[in-house]
Amino acid sequence: MNTNSKHNHEYWMQEALSLAEKGKGAVSPNPMVGCVIVSENGEKVGEGFHKKFGEAHAEVHAVQSIKDRDTLKNATVYVTLEPCSHQGKTPPCAQMLAKLPIQTVVVAMQDPNPSVNGKGILHLRNNGIEVEVGVLKKKAEKLNEFFIHHQTFGRPFITLKVAQTSDGYIAAADGESQWITGKESRRMVHQWRAEYDAVLVGRTTAMVDNPSLTVRHVSGRQPRRIVIDGPYELPKELNLFSDKFEEKTTILTWNKEASATDADPMLKVMKQNYFRGEVIQLSKVDGHVDLRQAFKVLGEKGITSVLVEGGQQLSSALVRQGMVDKLELFIAPKLLGAGTRSFINIGINKMKEIAELKDSTWTKVGNDILLTGYF
Amino acid sequence: MNTNSKHNHEYWMQEALSLAEKGKGAVSPNPMVGCVIVSENGEKVGEGFHKKFGEAHAEVHAVQSIKDRDTLKNATVYVTLEPCSHQGKTPPCAQMLAKLPIQTVVVAMQDPNPSVNGKGILHLRNNGIEVEVGVLKKKAEKLNEFFIHHQTFGRPFITLKVAQTSDGYIAAADGESQWITGKESRRMVHQWRAEYDAVLVGRTTAMVDNPSLTVRHVSGRQPRRIVIDGPYELPKELNLFSDKFEEKTTILTWNKEASATDADPMLKVMKQNYFRGEVIQLSKVDGHVDLRQAFKVLGEKGITSVLVEGGQQLSSALVRQGMVDKLELFIAPKLLGAGTRSFINIGINKMKEIAELKDSTWTKVGNDILLTGYF
Repeated sequence: MNTNSKHNHEYWMQEALSLAEKGKGAVSPNPMVGCVIVSENGEKVGEGFHKKFGEAHAEVHAVQSIKDRDTLKNATVYVTLEPCSHQGKTPPCAQMLAKLPIQTVVVAMQDPNPSVNGKGILHLRNNGIEVEVGVLKKKAEKLNEFFIHHQTFGRPFITLKVAQTSDGYIAAADGESQWITGKESRRMVHQWRAEYDAVLVGRTTAMVDNPSLTVRHVSGRQPRRIVIDGPYELPKELNLFSDKFEEKTTILTWNKEASATDADPMLKVMKQNYFRGEVIQLSKVDGHVDLRQAFKVLGEKGITSVLVEGGQQLSSALVRQGMVDKLELFIAPKLLGAGTRSFINIGINKMKEIAELKDSTWTKVGNDILLTGYF
Repeated sequence: MNTNSKHNHEYWMQEALSLAEKGKGAVSPNPMVGCVIVSENGEKVGEGFHKKFGEAHAEVHAVQSIKDRDTLKNATVYVTLEPCSHQGKTPPCAQMLAKLPIQTVVVAMQDPNPSVNGKGILHLRNNGIEVEVGVLKKKAEKLNEFFIHHQTFGRPFITLKVAQTSDGYIAAADGESQWITGKESRRMVHQWRAEYDAVLVGRTTAMVDNPSLTVRHVSGRQPRRIVIDGPYELPKELNLFSDKFEEKTTILTWNKEASATDADPMLKVMKQNYFRGEVIQLSKVDGHVDLRQAFKVLGEKGITSVLVEGGQQLSSALVRQGMVDKLELFIAPKLLGAGTRSFINIGINKMKEIAELKDSTWTKVGNDILLTGYF
């Protein structure tokens, strides 16, 4: 008989969540998943996590890690997400678990993926295994907020990152913006780049700052770099189009000739305009690339999360159009009193319409503060 | 022989500092002072603090609190500020202490008051008492930053309080500003009002918000309320001029007729313009009241600290003219994207001129964050 108390459930689930997190940046568009197996007498006998997209799931790693198969008898399996029930790149985990002599499966949250969504839990129950759902659910949802959002809405989770002075300026009157925030804040952004599927900048930022949007100061994989260039006119000498990650750059454009010339690389070479990255052609709305359509297309391509490193125009447009899910706002203890403001015209005219962030937190980062909140 | 170690010195001085702080809001323009007396065998035998302006000093209270005068033999006296050496409203403390059979006086900091400034310490040493200076000096200086500033520069310590959204707006496009920050932040401002000698607002704030600037939600004494009204035209029906604290209101004006008519109250009654408060007539600089002159005059009147509850114009003018000593900036986790900005035109045009606050700290206050820093 399994005597694990509710307290033990949370303890082991926390272990499974910590394991899951090790897959950050490597498993997308899959979710991060961790799994811990605890024997009848309350000892951990196996553990595993989903390490890389396309490879074995957490449950498989956990079962494989077990040294003495006898310990599986009446064991409890803790898994941060409902075991899958469908044949994907790997065989269904619910089926694999159902064949084991385990007693209980404790699941943090149901899988929002339409092809699972309760079927994994049902399969386990139909095979006589007790299933408890919802242990540390909120933490599990937070851990996989990108995946859940992508599964639920079909478009990526959009985080807007802004770095400003205390009085709300992102650049001085002379246009200079390097550096308002401190090196600890900037390092954190590099960490995020390694964790998001893509980073996105607008045309002005690409032109003025000529950013590389690479992962530096921390280790991690290079995300896709997306730049909005409606008219498809940005010079191909920019870092985004000419450095070693050129193929990881995506241009969003409304210019129909952009993809047409893409189809004929020789013509592009002749035009001194050859680009080996990706070009996505979109509709034009109010003179700009249709951002809603852009995120839909990116979602279809498996991009679950986008970190927008926005300038004033892009940041404000995204907030105004209700397309930002999460704000990461760095504020430095400095004043400018003039220059480029972080936000203008986000569609608010009255105090009663003020945009109050949900679940907001303030985190000290070096001398700066980081405001994190949801829309 | 006194065997108190350095560690003990800091311990007892911290006690003295905590005692001193009890005088906050009641002793100005005097400093807050606390005193602890520790016997030869290391026990606290007396304590006291300066309770009210004009009344006994901390050292007197501490000595009077001693039950057994024998414990004073070879005792150590901890005092947060150099004992006074001059006959003021009370007899000099250095002289009083020098007559006791004590061995040591430990002082956190020298008194910047020109009529003391080392003379108290000298008097003690000349009378065979060991004096140690500088224990928890930084804390003592922080505690009495208003007093020290006033003594050193002859003008009050100026703190600017601003409450804004995360994107730097203090009012929405419709002019409304109530309430951007939460009740915990607003309560803190009321606490400050009880601790500063005066609160100051500009003409626009007085007119638009019709503030009372009274101490509510906390207990404490009403500070002087200062309003800048260059042309002396604000309607006398405003709360500042007509409520029960009318006599605690000071008008700063460049209008020469303001004080002239003041001299003839009957004429004022006839003009429906009678005001029982104080009017200070100042020079006009660039069309505005000369703020530097204003603070000089206020300093001469014994105002050691002013809390400026500024609107955009006053806040920006004070920062631009380098007259703010400390900034208290409340930031709410909200966005407006339009409205009145906290600071415009503070004299900074280039990134390299950015105003970085010194000794900045971030403190969570309810859902808001409070940035405190020095210029």
